[in-house]
Amino acid sequence: MAPGAIDVNIQSISAYGPARSTVKVDKPLSSDEVHKINEYFKASLYLCLGMLYLRDNPLLKEPLKKEHIKNRVLGHWGSDAGQSFTWIHMNRLIKKYSLDSLFISGPGHGAPGILSQSYLEGVYSEVYPDKTEDEDGMRRFFKSFSFPGGIGSHATPETPGSIHEGGELGYSISHAFGAVYDHPDLIALTMVGDGEAETGPLATSWHSTKFLNPITDGAVLPVLHLNGYKINNPTLLARISHEELEALFIGYGWAPYFVEGSDLQSMHQSMAATLEHCVLDIKEIQKKARESKKAFRPRWPMIVLRTPKGWTAPREVDGKRLEGFWRSHQVPMPDVLTNPDHLKLLESWMKSYGPDELFANKGKLIPELKALAPTGNSRMSANPVGNGGLLRKPLDLPDFRTYGVQKIEPGVSLIGNMTNLAKFLRDVIAKNKTNFRLFGPDETESNKLGEVYKAGKKVWLGAYFDEDQDGGNLAMEGRVMEMLSEHTIEGWLEGYILSGRHGLLNSYEPFIHIIDSMVNQHCKWLEKCLEVEWRAKVASLNILLTATVWRQDHNGFTHQDPGFLDVVANKSPEVVRIYLPPDGNSLLSVADHCLRSVNYVNVIVADKQEHLQFLSMEEAIEHCTKGVGIWDWASNDQGEEPDVVMASAGDVATHEALAATALLRQYLPGVKVRFVNVVDLFRLIPETQHPHGMSDLQWKALFTEDKPIIFNFHSYPFLVHRLTYRRPGQKNLHVRGYREKGNIDTPFELAVRNETDRFSLAIAAIDNIPRLHNTASAIREKFVNSQIAARNTAFGDGVDSEEIRTWKWPFPKKELI
Amino acid sequence: MAPGAIDVNIQSISAYGPARSTVKVDKPLSSDEVHKINEYFKASLYLCLGMLYLRDNPLLKEPLKKEHIKNRVLGHWGSDAGQSFTWIHMNRLIKKYSLDSLFISGPGHGAPGILSQSYLEGVYSEVYPDKTEDEDGMRRFFKSFSFPGGIGSHATPETPGSIHEGGELGYSISHAFGAVYDHPDLIALTMVGDGEAETGPLATSWHSTKFLNPITDGAVLPVLHLNGYKINNPTLLARISHEELEALFIGYGWAPYFVEGSDLQSMHQSMAATLEHCVLDIKEIQKKARESKKAFRPRWPMIVLRTPKGWTAPREVDGKRLEGFWRSHQVPMPDVLTNPDHLKLLESWMKSYGPDELFANKGKLIPELKALAPTGNSRMSANPVGNGGLLRKPLDLPDFRTYGVQKIEPGVSLIGNMTNLAKFLRDVIAKNKTNFRLFGPDETESNKLGEVYKAGKKVWLGAYFDEDQDGGNLAMEGRVMEMLSEHTIEGWLEGYILSGRHGLLNSYEPFIHIIDSMVNQHCKWLEKCLEVEWRAKVASLNILLTATVWRQDHNGFTHQDPGFLDVVANKSPEVVRIYLPPDGNSLLSVADHCLRSVNYVNVIVADKQEHLQFLSMEEAIEHCTKGVGIWDWASNDQGEEPDVVMASAGDVATHEALAATALLRQYLPGVKVRFVNVVDLFRLIPETQHPHGMSDLQWKALFTEDKPIIFNFHSYPFLVHRLTYRRPGQKNLHVRGYREKGNIDTPFELAVRNETDRFSLAIAAIDNIPRLHNTASAIREKFVNSQIAARNTAFGDGVDSEEIRTWKWPFPKKELI
Repeated sequence: MAPGAIDVNIQSISAYGPARSTVKVDKPLSSDEVHKINEYFKASLYLCLGMLYLRDNPLLKEPLKKEHIKNRVLGHWGSDAGQSFTWIHMNRLIKKYSLDSLFISGPGHGAPGILSQSYLEGVYSEVYPDKTEDEDGMRRFFKSFSFPGGIGSHATPETPGSIHEGGELGYSISHAFGAVYDHPDLIALTMVGDGEAETGPLATSWHSTKFLNPITDGAVLPVLHLNGYKINNPTLLARISHEELEALFIGYGWAPYFVEGSDLQSMHQSMAATLEHCVLDIKEIQKKARESKKAFRPRWPMIVLRTPKGWTAPREVDGKRLEGFWRSHQVPMPDVLTNPDHLKLLESWMKSYGPDELFANKGKLIPELKALAPTGNSRMSANPVGNGGLLRKPLDLPDFRTYGVQKIEPGVSLIGNMTNLAKFLRDVIAKNKTNFRLFGPDETESNKLGEVYKAGKKVWLGAYFDEDQDGGNLAMEGRVMEMLSEHTIEGWLEGYILSGRHGLLNSYEPFIHIIDSMVNQHCKWLEKCLEVEWRAKVASLNILLTATVWRQDHNGFTHQDPGFLDVVANKSPEVVRIYLPPDGNSLLSVADHCLRSVNYVNVIVADKQEHLQFLSMEEAIEHCTKGVGIWDWASNDQGEEPDVVMASAGDVATHEALAATALLRQYLPGVKVRFVNVVDLFRLIPETQHPHGMSDLQWKALFTEDKPIIFNFHSYPFLVHRLTYRRPGQKNLHVRGYREKGNIDTPFELAVRNETDRFSLAIAAIDNIPRLHNTASAIREKFVNSQIAARNTAFGDGVDSEEIRTWKWPFPKKELI
Repeated sequence: MAPGAIDVNIQSISAYGPARSTVKVDKPLSSDEVHKINEYFKASLYLCLGMLYLRDNPLLKEPLKKEHIKNRVLGHWGSDAGQSFTWIHMNRLIKKYSLDSLFISGPGHGAPGILSQSYLEGVYSEVYPDKTEDEDGMRRFFKSFSFPGGIGSHATPETPGSIHEGGELGYSISHAFGAVYDHPDLIALTMVGDGEAETGPLATSWHSTKFLNPITDGAVLPVLHLNGYKINNPTLLARISHEELEALFIGYGWAPYFVEGSDLQSMHQSMAATLEHCVLDIKEIQKKARESKKAFRPRWPMIVLRTPKGWTAPREVDGKRLEGFWRSHQVPMPDVLTNPDHLKLLESWMKSYGPDELFANKGKLIPELKALAPTGNSRMSANPVGNGGLLRKPLDLPDFRTYGVQKIEPGVSLIGNMTNLAKFLRDVIAKNKTNFRLFGPDETESNKLGEVYKAGKKVWLGAYFDEDQDGGNLAMEGRVMEMLSEHTIEGWLEGYILSGRHGLLNSYEPFIHIIDSMVNQHCKWLEKCLEVEWRAKVASLNILLTATVWRQDHNGFTHQDPGFLDVVANKSPEVVRIYLPPDGNSLLSVADHCLRSVNYVNVIVADKQEHLQFLSMEEAIEHCTKGVGIWDWASNDQGEEPDVVMASAGDVATHEALAATALLRQYLPGVKVRFVNVVDLFRLIPETQHPHGMSDLQWKALFTEDKPIIFNFHSYPFLVHRLTYRRPGQKNLHVRGYREKGNIDTPFELAVRNETDRFSLAIAAIDNIPRLHNTASAIREKFVNSQIAARNTAFGDGVDSEEIRTWKWPFPKKELI
């Protein structure tokens, strides 16, 4: 046997020759230590099986019978042993070196592996007092697993110490990095499933080390669990040569250490030695950087742990492979209720772990094993970072009012809405140096937020070239996180928030769909947290969508998709908020509100180009507080019943709706137009369905119940219809929005294609005011012709006409109030 | 200088010491060849700049003036040179070795680089007759680029030879693999942007080689373009050491060859040698496998091409870096209209490429350069694979009727809906051995489609272990593609379809959101293709969603999300179809229809568990053809006006709606219930909005205009509301569906939480039939109590009661017709 190699007795490992232990095994553990660690391991495995199968007879004091088995056996065994094993070995080092450590569980459905740890450490009983450390408590603990009204088979919010559910795969590494940024003492021990490792998001997240500062940030210690199998297939990384596997992680920038095998004695020694080596390596790297005050990117250590899937299960059942094969992925013997032989086998398997001795202390883990675990908050399942809301400190926010756009002439002043937001965010960064980060996929500058770099540059631990001096804005200790992976930055942000800090992600609107599923899952996490008493609230996940559809005319059809709002609107009203501030001051007001809020996903939609301004700061605050309101200065119904309600949500949509209003009033001065603007989208739905909803009475006061409403909407028009389908007078509601019509266009042409331009809106108003049908046909035709002329100009010149581009509200404000 | 190294004159490359040319440069090209290739290169670069800037004076015969410049200069210069360079060098080898090759353009906005090739090859003029190869044609060619009504800055459907738009980044490699599967002679030369390479989907798609058979499939030759910069940031892969970079690709399973530099002479020699080496390597691998008839996974060759971003642009403008820096990403000098110095500089820059000599043949590329390009379909821009619809052969489909579930007793028979579909798909695979593949993220077996392995196993070029004999179903020449990356399998499928073949993707419903954005982009591609005359229609993208929300009770909240339908419904009605077959026979009918269709994205939602059957094959065909219909056997209104319409869409939803109907009829026999089932979701919208839509007249005939409609819907209820917001009687429409309420539940409990269970539906009916308000209160209470009792059972036993689980339609069918 090669030096340092350990005994291997399973084929899936031996297929590549002797297993490897990169760190030479010089028996760091005494045989007594090995024995105890192994006993602790057995205790956790016993609990895992108990969770999968038992509703009674938890300590197997009686012979196992059908009535002790759950009617529906659910759960997964595949990665439980590997995860327990890793956790337990970290316990030794936490105690030895007083580590501050968190466990992130990446492999799918591996919850028993870590729930068992939480129970053994006593945290589970502290958090859930009915799950006591005795026979009764254990019975309740077992029964509640994957049981209606109980807890799930992932590291759900109910799991002490978890900030990563792992229901959807692929985000363990990015979550882990998010958790350790600005937590310099924290080590996130991160188990990565080899199934999960095949996903795109996980595959690129290994590069996160290029954004980790060894002075100011903590460390992520990944343990890639080469379990060998997914549900029904081998895993890619378990079926490439050792040479390729090692090269891959060196290429990703890590120093991989291998722990491979199944023999318990040698595996304990190997894991103990290797994990200790890695922890010391991390400490050494940090010491070097911190003492020298010079940050650098080392090859951070990581572990490749190759163990059989379903490790410690029977090798075969009925002549079919179980341990070391995909059959051990889920419940190993799902038919124990109907197969007496399997019931018998289960009993002997469970008994083989020795529950009588392990839990001899009246059903509680015996003291000599208890002593292996850390105590208090050093227990990974009790680390406060795992309940990050506890650590959350409100942001020290500058007064957003002082950043307001001054001397607004409504509908006339023109500025970029991001200009002042960028200054505000700059100062948020400056005042919250370890508590706030800005995230973006290489778009922060493009999104006109470059001002923030004055307070915090872009974190960059890759190589530096001289040319970076020429406006590169890169720094080892930056505050802005940019990588061209929406998945990674979203994962970082989620991890950062869930571990108690604050952040904002800015992105082009069209490509935010890339992380639909991640945001969905975060919403579900937040909603579930509301049901978990001990979970403290975390900062909201703030997403700023810009470079929006109506100004993606030049980039074309692929860059036009405002449909993220539909995805968000499907999530629980308890946790989602959507804002469409029409201008710069309202954007500031909304942003301030979002940064103060907790437990939401806030989506803010605001374009980055120059746009008309409408509201003074005081007006903006009032308008955003109400979420929807009549703009008197743009209306001429003066409290009477209007002929038509012109409504809008979104900056460009408001611009065109206002221009349409002006057309109507210029050419049809007898028409009374009421102008309504919506900032807070969920104001549109009934108050019974969303906390921000409004009553029908309020609805009627704004929108009337019998007048035509021309609603110019930023996104797909159907979203407004689904929010308002029960409203009085909804049949009078004509919603315009993006209808998937686009190409390389000018802004005006793009609007015309989707009938959201001023002329289309004004024509819609005429068509829906009955008394105009016979009287306004000449005006209507004029609008049609003006629209055609403007289109022709765009196609001829490649740009919109001066008149279209520089349109301003033509009525003085004061006369209108 | 190291042997084999080439001259390097830019810092961003020299920062890591001498640039590398892995293949020793022994001057494969004569100096005449270098000269000509370089002239061709200059011609393409000239065209690129022309596209960005000019609307007139295309050959710069007159001094360049403002009026020759587009009013809005749009486009990207950054990767154009590198892409042109690569294309041109491949041309040489296509001619030398009679290669069948396709170019996939991954870097963002790099269209000028490949449009220029298409124009130089003459294909552009063949396809667009007004874009002739003369001064006038060139002017029109320039003007139409990034111009309203023209073409976009990606490799849009209008681009000859393109099957990969690249508007959203990350899918070049997976598309390329999709294109070469079952195209054994094809080489997909695939340019990968180093920005794109940071995305998750791209990062994992490098593993695709483990699914490529060197005998039956073609080859992908990636050229990773280390351009150095994204929009405003350096790229990760350009800022890691050579050692890491090389290791990374070895780890991914490739043999990377490096071509680095900026000096044109040496770069031509290096690229010529390296590309030729790679092509010969591919041919050698294929020869070895094909002659021996033994497939294997080699280290396929790839190229890392490190050139300056914006290569051949001025090094600096106004003392600021341009070439080799992120400033060359977009239009290098966007202010030429207002800055006369820059206009002058542009003119001299463009002139430096020598348009007078290059296009001396009356504005056409001179013959000695023309001769460098291949001819006919050997031109990459004319490869028929790039217009895959041309190659599409209809599937040889077995008669789906023969797979039908026999002897259906409606509402009584119970089978798994996938059972017969699996047999049908098995035979589709068997009859279409090189024309159809099935795709899934490790879920095909779990989704009960394992029967297909009898006709085609899972493609696997990773290592084999002995244990694979035990039901592994792996094969070098399989027909089922499984990798735990929804992104990769979707990319493969898209590439496979776009290059002329057929396929179906099966996935758990909840995680299909992972590819929301990819499906969005594919829809946009298809829609745009409808406007491009020469594009032949391709097979539809078929997505089968199973393991659906209502049977994800046990996996919990993270596995419950039917919202993909909302994303799809936002796309153009021309290209999207959504089907919710209620049972096995209707699933077969729908699947057959989808496999025959072209140019759609078809989404089929059907759960994988055992479910009630409702329709004989003939009934199913009729029902699916209509898309929606009254089920007479389940109705008792016998042609009269009903008291209530009970409607459903989706298998589980139909089951519960039927059970509710039975409750009403059993306990309130005087109530007339009409039962309507919807298969084709777009039947619900007006015929003016979707080709499948129905008129209000048809609507009223089915749903009435004044009776309460209780609609039990598979997905989020709002989707039905948005589709029906204008329907007569829509205020009577009460839609039930998933309302984001879930946990670890039983199926019944999950339904109750969302009020989609039989009791909730029956109660809703009672509450909405006015005449029952005073008469049915006892029955209503009974339903309430039955619901409570059933919930208690679930919470107590962990499973639903026998009564709930085994409910069957209690009325004989014959009495009802």
